[in-house]
Amino acid sequence: MDLDLVREALGDQPFSRLLGTRLVDCGDGAATLELDIREELLQQYGFVHGGVVSYLADNTLTLAAATVVGPGVITSGFTIDYLRPATGAVLRADAQVVRAGRTRVVCRCEVATVDGGGVRTLCAVAQGNVAVTEPAGAGR
Amino acid sequence: MDLDLVREALGDQPFSRLLGTRLVDCGDGAATLELDIREELLQQYGFVHGGVVSYLADNTLTLAAATVVGPGVITSGFTIDYLRPATGAVLRADAQVVRAGRTRVVCRCEVATVDGGGVRTLCAVAQGNVAVTEPAGAGR
Amino acid sequence: MDLDLVREALGDQPFSRLLGTRLVDCGDGAATLELDIREELLQQYGFVHGGVVSYLADNTLTLAAATVVGPGVITSGFTIDYLRPATGAVLRADAQVVRAGRTRVVCRCEVATVDGGGVRTLCAVAQGNVAVTEPAGAGR
Amino acid sequence: MDLDLVREALGDQPFSRLLGTRLVDCGDGAATLELDIREELLQQYGFVHGGVVSYLADNTLTLAAATVVGPGVITSGFTIDYLRPATGAVLRADAQVVRAGRTRVVCRCEVATVDGGGVRTLCAVAQGNVAVTEPAGAGR
Repeated sequence: MDLDLVREALGDQPFSRLLGTRLVDCGDGAATLELDIREELLQQYGFVHGGVVSYLADNTLTLAAATVVGPGVITSGFTIDYLRPATGAVLRADAQVVRAGRTRVVCRCEVATVDGGGVRTLCAVAQGNVAVTEPAGAGR
Repeated sequence: MDLDLVREALGDQPFSRLLGTRLVDCGDGAATLELDIREELLQQYGFVHGGVVSYLADNTLTLAAATVVGPGVITSGFTIDYLRPATGAVLRADAQVVRAGRTRVVCRCEVATVDGGGVRTLCAVAQGNVAVTEPAGAGR
Repeated sequence: MDLDLVREALGDQPFSRLLGTRLVDCGDGAATLELDIREELLQQYGFVHGGVVSYLADNTLTLAAATVVGPGVITSGFTIDYLRPATGAVLRADAQVVRAGRTRVVCRCEVATVDGGGVRTLCAVAQGNVAVTEPAGAGR
Repeated sequence: MDLDLVREALGDQPFSRLLGTRLVDCGDGAATLELDIREELLQQYGFVHGGVVSYLADNTLTLAAATVVGPGVITSGFTIDYLRPATGAVLRADAQVVRAGRTRVVCRCEVATVDGGGVRTLCAVAQGNVAVTEPAGAGR
């Protein structure tokens, strides 16, 4: 999958448009997504809502898998551990494939905030399973 | 925590307002949240985005824990397994406390869609850990 | 799969023989395994080692799935949360299928200790994914 | 904690003695454990039983946390994804601390087999939570 195709797939997700997610990079078993932190995405204490963090992890895990096995993928499930409250300008998720099997891809993801100076603060780690619903090159 | 306090806490979350989440019920180690499924919450195939499902699980797990140990809680992390694509009118999450310790509460959650006739279709199960940041009755 | 077949499969696992695991019941999407708690299975504080608890959860999740989709299954992974130190005479795990798909079965499991009077103390909950490697009725 | 103390703690676990686990290295937020693969540790297809793999991940996660926060730790729970059947001479787990908080340490772990020539084949990844039951330097 090239970058433009993945960007298009992301743009086709109404929920990702609502949140303002953008594709930073993807390829070779890795993907990076970002979104700008804004008031609407917070919880009651002024930090990014955990649901935004887990959404971004989920989506980035799936895209990392798609770079290896093609677009016919769907996330089966994942585990996320929150490490610190997320606050700052930008939320960024980096995911990598650990092992791509024929029907299942296992990936890991780190979600961090990035401040104006580019300093990255890790705020969650995730590990997930992506199911291959349609093998790459199967037409489509 | 009574129902009005929890409803207020939920209303204080900008992200929950953005998604339109409402408290259906909570108390005695259980909580139920719902949101109306609308176009903005979908992914590219017309189903509810996994990120919405995981957000709702996360939030409901936390509220279930709060009914036992008080409002000083924060979700440490959770595992979610998606079972079926979520589609329909309403997304509902039911969470229950499995074990409330002094510093950690373990909860389980089921997320289902509910159609107009009240028929429930299970679409995800989650299991999570909620940290007690402030013991109940510690002031606040 | 009938009870005798499952018992035989369990008996074919050298590690289950080493631990002394026995099949209590299985069928219709559920399975129960037990083992007698003995000194060799403990950690340094005199409780059952977490590794024994997680082993029993893993094995019971797999058997529960097998009762629905046949013997061609392998556990993909699972999450376990420990709730209490496990101590007593018998360790028992009960697993149930939550959703059996064509290629993946999601199950939940509770691990408890049971004392001489039959009183059950829950000590861990698990949620796992079992992969169907060979559909039921595919020969074998 | 120095290496001798950790080795002693491991030797105090009857279950780790039963399995033959040895400490290879630990310190600075990381730990490595190994065990020799032998017939008793297998499942019915001749591979290392998943329960042995998850036991080793669990134990290594805990030790990695202990190198940072001291011996007063207990694993709260973990997630494991199996990647490949484990076969070979030696099973090795490497764990690292991702984030050590005051009451909770999040760690990751890789479990691999190592053949006679030192070639490592990754067979599982885990992510876990370790609870700090007694802060370092609190006496013991």
